Amino acid sequence: MKRYTVGIDFGTLSGRALLLDAESGAVLATSVLDYPHGVMDRELPDGTPLPPQYALQHPSDYLEVLQTTVPDVLKQAGVSPEEVVGIGIDFTTCTLLSMYEDGTPLCLDPKYEHEPHAYVKLWKHHGAQPEADAINALAKERGEDWIDVYGGKISSEWAIPKVLETLHKAPEVFADAARFLDAGDWLSYILTGEESHAAGFAGFKCLWGADRGYPSNDFFTALDPRLSGLIGTKIAADVRTVDGIAGKLSDEGAELTGLCKGTPVALPILDAHAAMPALDIVKPGVLMIIVGTSGVQLVHADRKYDLQGICGYVRDSVVPGLYTYEAGQSGLGDCFDWFVKNGVPESYEIAAREAGMSIHKYLREKAKTLRVGESGLLALDWLNGNRSTLQDADLSGLVLGITLSTRPEEIYRALIEATAFGLRRILDVFTDGGMEIHSIRASGGIAKKDEMLMQIYADVCGKPIDVVDTEQGAAHGSAIYAAVAAGVYPSVVEAAEALAVKDAQTYTPDPQNSARYEKLYAEYCRLYDYFGTENNVMKRLCAWRTEL
Amino acid sequence: MKRYTVGIDFGTLSGRALLLDAESGAVLATSVLDYPHGVMDRELPDGTPLPPQYALQHPSDYLEVLQTTVPDVLKQAGVSPEEVVGIGIDFTTCTLLSMYEDGTPLCLDPKYEHEPHAYVKLWKHHGAQPEADAINALAKERGEDWIDVYGGKISSEWAIPKVLETLHKAPEVFADAARFLDAGDWLSYILTGEESHAAGFAGFKCLWGADRGYPSNDFFTALDPRLSGLIGTKIAADVRTVDGIAGKLSDEGAELTGLCKGTPVALPILDAHAAMPALDIVKPGVLMIIVGTSGVQLVHADRKYDLQGICGYVRDSVVPGLYTYEAGQSGLGDCFDWFVKNGVPESYEIAAREAGMSIHKYLREKAKTLRVGESGLLALDWLNGNRSTLQDADLSGLVLGITLSTRPEEIYRALIEATAFGLRRILDVFTDGGMEIHSIRASGGIAKKDEMLMQIYADVCGKPIDVVDTEQGAAHGSAIYAAVAAGVYPSVVEAAEALAVKDAQTYTPDPQNSARYEKLYAEYCRLYDYFGTENNVMKRLCAWRTEL
Repeated sequence: MKRYTVGIDFGTLSGRALLLDAESGAVLATSVLDYPHGVMDRELPDGTPLPPQYALQHPSDYLEVLQTTVPDVLKQAGVSPEEVVGIGIDFTTCTLLSMYEDGTPLCLDPKYEHEPHAYVKLWKHHGAQPEADAINALAKERGEDWIDVYGGKISSEWAIPKVLETLHKAPEVFADAARFLDAGDWLSYILTGEESHAAGFAGFKCLWGADRGYPSNDFFTALDPRLSGLIGTKIAADVRTVDGIAGKLSDEGAELTGLCKGTPVALPILDAHAAMPALDIVKPGVLMIIVGTSGVQLVHADRKYDLQGICGYVRDSVVPGLYTYEAGQSGLGDCFDWFVKNGVPESYEIAAREAGMSIHKYLREKAKTLRVGESGLLALDWLNGNRSTLQDADLSGLVLGITLSTRPEEIYRALIEATAFGLRRILDVFTDGGMEIHSIRASGGIAKKDEMLMQIYADVCGKPIDVVDTEQGAAHGSAIYAAVAAGVYPSVVEAAEALAVKDAQTYTPDPQNSARYEKLYAEYCRLYDYFGTENNVMKRLCAWRTEL
Repeated sequence: MKRYTVGIDFGTLSGRALLLDAESGAVLATSVLDYPHGVMDRELPDGTPLPPQYALQHPSDYLEVLQTTVPDVLKQAGVSPEEVVGIGIDFTTCTLLSMYEDGTPLCLDPKYEHEPHAYVKLWKHHGAQPEADAINALAKERGEDWIDVYGGKISSEWAIPKVLETLHKAPEVFADAARFLDAGDWLSYILTGEESHAAGFAGFKCLWGADRGYPSNDFFTALDPRLSGLIGTKIAADVRTVDGIAGKLSDEGAELTGLCKGTPVALPILDAHAAMPALDIVKPGVLMIIVGTSGVQLVHADRKYDLQGICGYVRDSVVPGLYTYEAGQSGLGDCFDWFVKNGVPESYEIAAREAGMSIHKYLREKAKTLRVGESGLLALDWLNGNRSTLQDADLSGLVLGITLSTRPEEIYRALIEATAFGLRRILDVFTDGGMEIHSIRASGGIAKKDEMLMQIYADVCGKPIDVVDTEQGAAHGSAIYAAVAAGVYPSVVEAAEALAVKDAQTYTPDPQNSARYEKLYAEYCRLYDYFGTENNVMKRLCAWRTEL
């Protein structure tokens, strides 16, 4: 009998299943479902309006993904449930859910139907910046050493700020919640009937560390007396490392997925982290970048490094025994989309249609003829704030060098270059900190589509970049973890060797362009430091918006 | 017999004549001709391509304005040439022409048909920045005191940089030119057969002062030995103050205009300066602003002030006995036009058409509902460089505070606010320097059309602004000077009293918005100082463009 695994990737707008041949690594089928409720950023399903910066989700959408996409991949490939030997899940994080003891999300309780804070808070829910500020200030004041793990500052997107926001704005929800947990952990509970809390979620988004556990109860009590005892009650105290499995499919889980009861379920993992074994990154020295709506950078290390401004590191969360360091760019493809929707004139749209091109492609065709520095433009890529290295959602974008002859494709390219400089800045933190990074492997929708962008990234970073030929890195990686959970391979290192995607396109830096970009990057860094630390005008402008 | 005068205003894109009743001040007719050659910024008439930053004109266009618009206003009003008692001319400056001894422009010589430097260099020709830099550096090095008159720095738009550029790039043109002169002075030579050089052109654009004359020959020789003896040869040494007349219509002038030989011609004047008597600004204490493609600020004073970064002051150039101070914003309406052409999405264009509005009006309608600070945006209005107070054409525009939810009308408003802050910064230089300015009078196309903009200007400046009801301030003012030249009034003060435009709409500052803008203006000033002096990134980016 052949052995197959299913990897299920829960993204921002949709969930997708991937069926993998657990021996050859061949991808047999994929299936996607757009979340019926999408991202709720204007109103709840009942019409309750939402404040700015809110981004909520509906948990029933995730169950619908299981119900439709898993049976669909089996059907497409003509594979029977018995041939599926393991399931893996990955989730975009920190996507925080509050549930009752029996696993029911509070938002499904009619009592809380109108209460935004009872819904799932998606990673990009930005309502908790004051709470993140308070946590950062208190950690600094008390000299908490765990804050250094996260580059000295945590993000409003993480679990504890979101929990604290719920306590502040909806204390009843906080009181009624038996547990706050990552949506990935919740799904594994739904599938297996057993609660398990994955090291990745806890470590990267909830302040836990393999060697130190959670921050002390003193810290939580000082933050708010009502948080006393939080760990071990509303936040589970036990955390499992990546080599464990979450459990086996329960009756309910089997019914949801159409798979067999008892099928092993791998411990859930962060979506970007799942992509690492799929891209064959299971050892130090190779930086993985995901070039999508936002940007993610991940690298393994065999020891700890002192790195300022990196989102964090966790041991045993991706490969047992290795530390995985994560950094991020909170706006990447989102910035280009913003520009295309808001800043491209009608004449360009008409010309693109006449040429039968998407507007992105049309702009790229024009932008790629520009020489480095020709536009005279320089931008800061902070349209969605800055994750690494400044960890500040209140920072904003900037375009400098505009003249009366500036053209749209020049601004488009300047935004792309700004994201390249943002990546380079993160890379510099790693290498300046002593880590050796000899090459870069990339995936993500934009990495595959935009050759100009990838060449600019290689030129700006001065390193070769391999774009790995997969559009389903996370789902593929989840299926690899499923193969380990099923016992097909003894470890994720061996599984990756057998099952990772091998095909890649290599971008090699152009020495002349690299040299020119070096000068522009120095200017970018000067603006970065000025607006990141010296002149807080962006933060003041942001604060005044909310004061109106 | 009734007495009429004709004022002729030469702008950037067109020339216009205005027929004024010299007793009642009634405007009887106007007539406009767009220059057939327009602004030549890409190629010469023969197809010779032009470098970036060039802006040339064809002198025959000016003669065509005289030939068509003057007869046209007489015809429209049924006025005979005998009833016209005076002519006045104003010209946008510094628009520099080189001519042979007999008045023929060099560009009309077939020998120079393909030579860009033989054509008229329009005010916004920006090819002479290196020459302006050299002049500023040398003046500083030698401790020349005349440079203080111009706020410590002169612009690449002025006469001597343009002459020096010709010497550097087309030495043959320099050698063959009998005279370099402002196009306004050239026209008065063509009309009267007598050369006269107006104090306004010489004082504001050619380094001359009523009490000190031109810079020394030592200075010019140090700049370039080939400039030795420049003043008195290729630049006329004699300069006439505003109370003189240029001469009387020659046979050729009469033939060109259809007016009578012997009609007095007023000394030509700078276009914005001509508008001052038309707006009844002939005394100190009132700031005139012209809100058009670019911005001009003018104010009279009865003594000298030490003001850093103002374009200059000249005595006897507008009102005999008074010093007239000028400042400017090199990009104003141009910035909004750039945005509308390059930064407004198709959906807005469609909606504007459906609503039957111009795109400017559509954006205004949306922008005017925004509260002060609501967008979180802040811009620097330097898309065409900065005239006052930094005198640097290599500075560029900036937009800061962009987020993924930033909308086009927010950027549009931020650009408007940036020009308001730019005006306020200039106003502050005047008042901080000790000048008392109790109110502002405005004219210009945008002042009349855009109520939102004018209210923002009043709020940002914290002073009432009267928008005077004329679209032809300069031509009207030229006609007032013509009435003085004709002897209808003994002086421009009396003439203005009788003939100025009286109707105006007043904008009064809103105290709450003024207070909010005060905070934004402080941030603007911090960016202004940072990018204007501390971090020269804009100048470096500009330099790298040309190095490619």
